[in-house]
Amino acid sequence: MPDLRKDPVTGRWVVVSTERIKRSIDFQRNQVVIRNQGVCPFCPGNETRTPLEVLAYRTSGAANQPGWSTRVVPHRFPALRVEGELERSGEGAYDRMNGVGAHEVIVDCPEHVASLADTSEENVRNLLFAYRDRVHDLRKDPRFEYIQLFKNHGQAAGAAFEHSHSELIALPLVPQRVQEELRGAERYFSFRNRCVYCDIVHQELESRTRVVLEGSHVVALAPFASRGPFELWLLPKRHASHFETQPEEVYRDVAATLRAVLGRLDRALERPAYNFALHTAPLRQGNTESFDWHLEILPRLARTGGFEMGTGFSLNPTPPEEAARFLKEHS
Amino acid sequence: MPDLRKDPVTGRWVVVSTERIKRSIDFQRNQVVIRNQGVCPFCPGNETRTPLEVLAYRTSGAANQPGWSTRVVPHRFPALRVEGELERSGEGAYDRMNGVGAHEVIVDCPEHVASLADTSEENVRNLLFAYRDRVHDLRKDPRFEYIQLFKNHGQAAGAAFEHSHSELIALPLVPQRVQEELRGAERYFSFRNRCVYCDIVHQELESRTRVVLEGSHVVALAPFASRGPFELWLLPKRHASHFETQPEEVYRDVAATLRAVLGRLDRALERPAYNFALHTAPLRQGNTESFDWHLEILPRLARTGGFEMGTGFSLNPTPPEEAARFLKEHS
Repeated sequence: MPDLRKDPVTGRWVVVSTERIKRSIDFQRNQVVIRNQGVCPFCPGNETRTPLEVLAYRTSGAANQPGWSTRVVPHRFPALRVEGELERSGEGAYDRMNGVGAHEVIVDCPEHVASLADTSEENVRNLLFAYRDRVHDLRKDPRFEYIQLFKNHGQAAGAAFEHSHSELIALPLVPQRVQEELRGAERYFSFRNRCVYCDIVHQELESRTRVVLEGSHVVALAPFASRGPFELWLLPKRHASHFETQPEEVYRDVAATLRAVLGRLDRALERPAYNFALHTAPLRQGNTESFDWHLEILPRLARTGGFEMGTGFSLNPTPPEEAARFLKEHS
Repeated sequence: MPDLRKDPVTGRWVVVSTERIKRSIDFQRNQVVIRNQGVCPFCPGNETRTPLEVLAYRTSGAANQPGWSTRVVPHRFPALRVEGELERSGEGAYDRMNGVGAHEVIVDCPEHVASLADTSEENVRNLLFAYRDRVHDLRKDPRFEYIQLFKNHGQAAGAAFEHSHSELIALPLVPQRVQEELRGAERYFSFRNRCVYCDIVHQELESRTRVVLEGSHVVALAPFASRGPFELWLLPKRHASHFETQPEEVYRDVAATLRAVLGRLDRALERPAYNFALHTAPLRQGNTESFDWHLEILPRLARTGGFEMGTGFSLNPTPPEEAARFLKEHS
């Protein structure tokens, strides 16, 4: 019998349906391979092929020259534009804003590797420091309400380049999915007086059936109502609403845990394409008791269709307990 | 400058960003082709290769034999199971139900064609009658609250078979996306005392910039806040909350309009993969003044990534005005 599971934060339902595992079409293989075609604009020595850097951690060299470990540049084809004031307008039943925002590419590491698991832990740490430092810089701009940090890994996950990179988009409003989580977490808090994410972490660390990796400060787990096969969340073990204000040892542990868990995905699923997105409390919101920052990782394995589009339900052919067990075998 | 547009029903934002059109990776070609590999279980003569039919419109032959124009069978690998009572249970912070529901396949037409545009208007009309009749039959089951009718067209859109077919899943709850629409429409109604979908239809028929086709009872348009390139909505011109209680002439016009608009998609975009989903007021809800049934069609042309996953925003590289203009040229 399939299982209907409700996400305890957003209230979204997932059909965890083990019997559909038989249908091979539900599982796509989107293996990420390095092709080395053309000149990589993200490799050291090719800095002139990107816009001028806005941040780089370097041990040598001048700006826009080799010697960096993480490098941040404006996106060449930005989804939103950094120039101009925010303007709102109506048109009958419709509302619009001009697309003010910032869109940056974070080159994760100097090596031409596809996966974060293939670079050093130190580079992953620097990458997280870059995430933090870009948020602190961009929050000075009063037009921005939220900064979405994310990664598209592999062409099937929307990546246009194979050299490991992340992106950020600074937005003039708090996006709907983050609002849904914040509101859901508030509802839970008003009912139980506890943070829902903290409750998840406690319950999972007790049962252990969905925990993949436990670090000293964070835990990686397959969420109870996983939207797709091998969805993973990275959550702090101590309550913290904002990612960008963590002490340094937390980033160190996130780097080690993230690198290890992505390595397990690579080994267990033959280097799958995936996305990750960082959720944190909004820039202009103070610390909140009801919400924890977290990283959501979703491999691109399941094919979605009209049912998911129409309902918002997910159909997940792989129970998270099986996903966690499988990933634990690939240490 | 890109445009941030808000869906007037759900409040979701879309970035309509014309400049990203340059990046070819944003546009996938998922051309649907007929390969004729293996035996098609949906072709007349192969009725034994499916479970026994629950409905068929036929001019000749006995049940489960050739002579039908539309045929409905249970899904061989159902996402939900029709047996058993609905049971709810908790597990700490988590809630679950057992997966009670119904999952059926509707074979759209007897010919082995991929697209609804390639069968007769009469067959499409019969298909809509089958949608209606299955809803009326399944609503007798008190466990069901909503019936999601949808289509996966092409492998990239989740179709497992190339012979044109639709599916339905009967659910023990009203899905989140439908609830969001109902709530959004109620908010609009309480503010303006008008149905938001009716307002959209009126405004679009006046401006004409996003209308693709106007029938006598329905209109096909590219919505203001299209989630992706060439999203289309089919909406009734006269207010109606439930699809399954329409007079026959409405289905006739939906059939003609749907077939024509899918034919335009086929010609304009080289037979793209797409999904459609029918939204209607819930089974147990009486007629409502605030909500219209509608059909949402979404071609699988845009690649989504971590930004969409993290924020719930869509990035749409094709303004709906351009999509409508392009489709109007392909009559």
